[in-house]
Amino acid sequence: MRLLTFTTADSVERLGAEADGLVVDLAALADRAGVRLPHDLLSFIQAGPAARETAGRLLAADPAGRPAGAVHRLDDVTLCAPHRPGKIIGVGLNYVEHVAESSRSLDTDKERPPRPVLFSKPATAVTGPGQPILHNADLTTQLDWECELAVVIGRTAFRIGEEEAYDHVFGYAVVNDISARDQRRSGQWFFSKGQDSYAPFGPVVVTADAIPDPMALDLSLRVNGVTKQKSNTRHMLFPIARLIADISSGMTLEPGDVIATGSPSGVGAGMVPPEFLVPGDTVEATVELIGTLTNPVVDAR
Amino acid sequence: MRLLTFTTADSVERLGAEADGLVVDLAALADRAGVRLPHDLLSFIQAGPAARETAGRLLAADPAGRPAGAVHRLDDVTLCAPHRPGKIIGVGLNYVEHVAESSRSLDTDKERPPRPVLFSKPATAVTGPGQPILHNADLTTQLDWECELAVVIGRTAFRIGEEEAYDHVFGYAVVNDISARDQRRSGQWFFSKGQDSYAPFGPVVVTADAIPDPMALDLSLRVNGVTKQKSNTRHMLFPIARLIADISSGMTLEPGDVIATGSPSGVGAGMVPPEFLVPGDTVEATVELIGTLTNPVVDAR
Repeated sequence: MRLLTFTTADSVERLGAEADGLVVDLAALADRAGVRLPHDLLSFIQAGPAARETAGRLLAADPAGRPAGAVHRLDDVTLCAPHRPGKIIGVGLNYVEHVAESSRSLDTDKERPPRPVLFSKPATAVTGPGQPILHNADLTTQLDWECELAVVIGRTAFRIGEEEAYDHVFGYAVVNDISARDQRRSGQWFFSKGQDSYAPFGPVVVTADAIPDPMALDLSLRVNGVTKQKSNTRHMLFPIARLIADISSGMTLEPGDVIATGSPSGVGAGMVPPEFLVPGDTVEATVELIGTLTNPVVDAR
Repeated sequence: MRLLTFTTADSVERLGAEADGLVVDLAALADRAGVRLPHDLLSFIQAGPAARETAGRLLAADPAGRPAGAVHRLDDVTLCAPHRPGKIIGVGLNYVEHVAESSRSLDTDKERPPRPVLFSKPATAVTGPGQPILHNADLTTQLDWECELAVVIGRTAFRIGEEEAYDHVFGYAVVNDISARDQRRSGQWFFSKGQDSYAPFGPVVVTADAIPDPMALDLSLRVNGVTKQKSNTRHMLFPIARLIADISSGMTLEPGDVIATGSPSGVGAGMVPPEFLVPGDTVEATVELIGTLTNPVVDAR
């Protein structure tokens, strides 16, 4: 199932499912069928497998029975960030070639990290597909991109072993881990990676059953149509199951929480000479089977 | 006003106000008076000045009119964390002597940081007064304390100047910034400071009107009754107004968000030889005019 949050002309956010270029309003289907279904994606995730089963049944029913106004062309709706996660945990230096690139251009170690390098972005950093990435030249001249596979947690996880880690995954999305490289604070990444709009997220959350192998997905990023990053999730240093086990060894992962699993090489800071985002740029981050998250960069001084 | 979240025998969390050793159930007072008042502290903060005025009126009315069961002795209730913040932003190295101490014992710079050093803890790290700090010897042998003044945001702040910063403060509390020093990941503090129970918070939130000068508060911390930290908030390197201006230059602060304003010298890692928390210890963090946050350390392997 490809779940998304959308608005139409009335601008109330609705929970939808996408298929074949159409967006189906799940709440409208549920109301017509007289069944209960959470009306926003975070509540839907929190409601567990029952909500997914209900939604699956509603979508499988005869399309002729759908109420008027419950189906939109994808082009006619505005997509929003899927939901507001309780926490977003980023993983630094999780692709081998990015470790080398980062040690040349930033202040990180040349050696592969022995344990996942974890940081976070606040919920206020989240922005949706098509929404602007804010470029404030008073704060940064080094605004950078990082295309990443986002893992969305579906079931509370605390001290979960690698072998059961995937039982706690709801689905997958794309996140663009935007950084103002010059806003690291004594080495800490929170302010450089956590500013408003620095976590473009979406365009949809694809449920885990629709991604046969999340460790074998192509991912790529383009700036103004020029490919900057191109890799595959199989090159992660710490795979998804290990990340869930590691994080949950000390920190409870809750439904809706997002793990941004790290970025391959090809970030702007690693270019020779370095390249950074400026107002007017357009960034497209793509992960196979999920889609493309496109965001313009705007002057926000 | 000294606001708190408490439970009695029925263990439903209630919003209360404390005075003279008594806890008044604000929802019960509001129901009796037939006025609307949010029933939890986060909603109360989000409701803005109107909720504070209503609560103030209810508390000022003749105590004889209070319904039965609306007043408890402080000793008879269990305090909880005041609320679950949307984000908790920590400030590292914000007391001059702690900068020196930290550079000797940890991997931080000897120089005073030119800008606030910002990091974060997730909401899942929050725990309440009296609740255990989890010591997992499989993950850490360097569990450390840091007593800090917590600033609770009352009004959304984005790009707020220092001169208007205090207009956005709801009140103040105590936070104990617990760290597993040996769980820094390539220098990033998130996992070392963000694990479950690593943000004891409380015991009350004192509204800003009751703290004449938050930049002149004694703060101290004791382990098993022995004083380890003792300073005054006047020694902050970056004062509260500057922190709010700096953070909000790029990041929206929302009602209920917490800024942990940094810790003075006297942390365990800075002792010669270093001292760390072990199961059985009791940590008491005190800030003048607010109170003492006491937490036991328990074996949580």
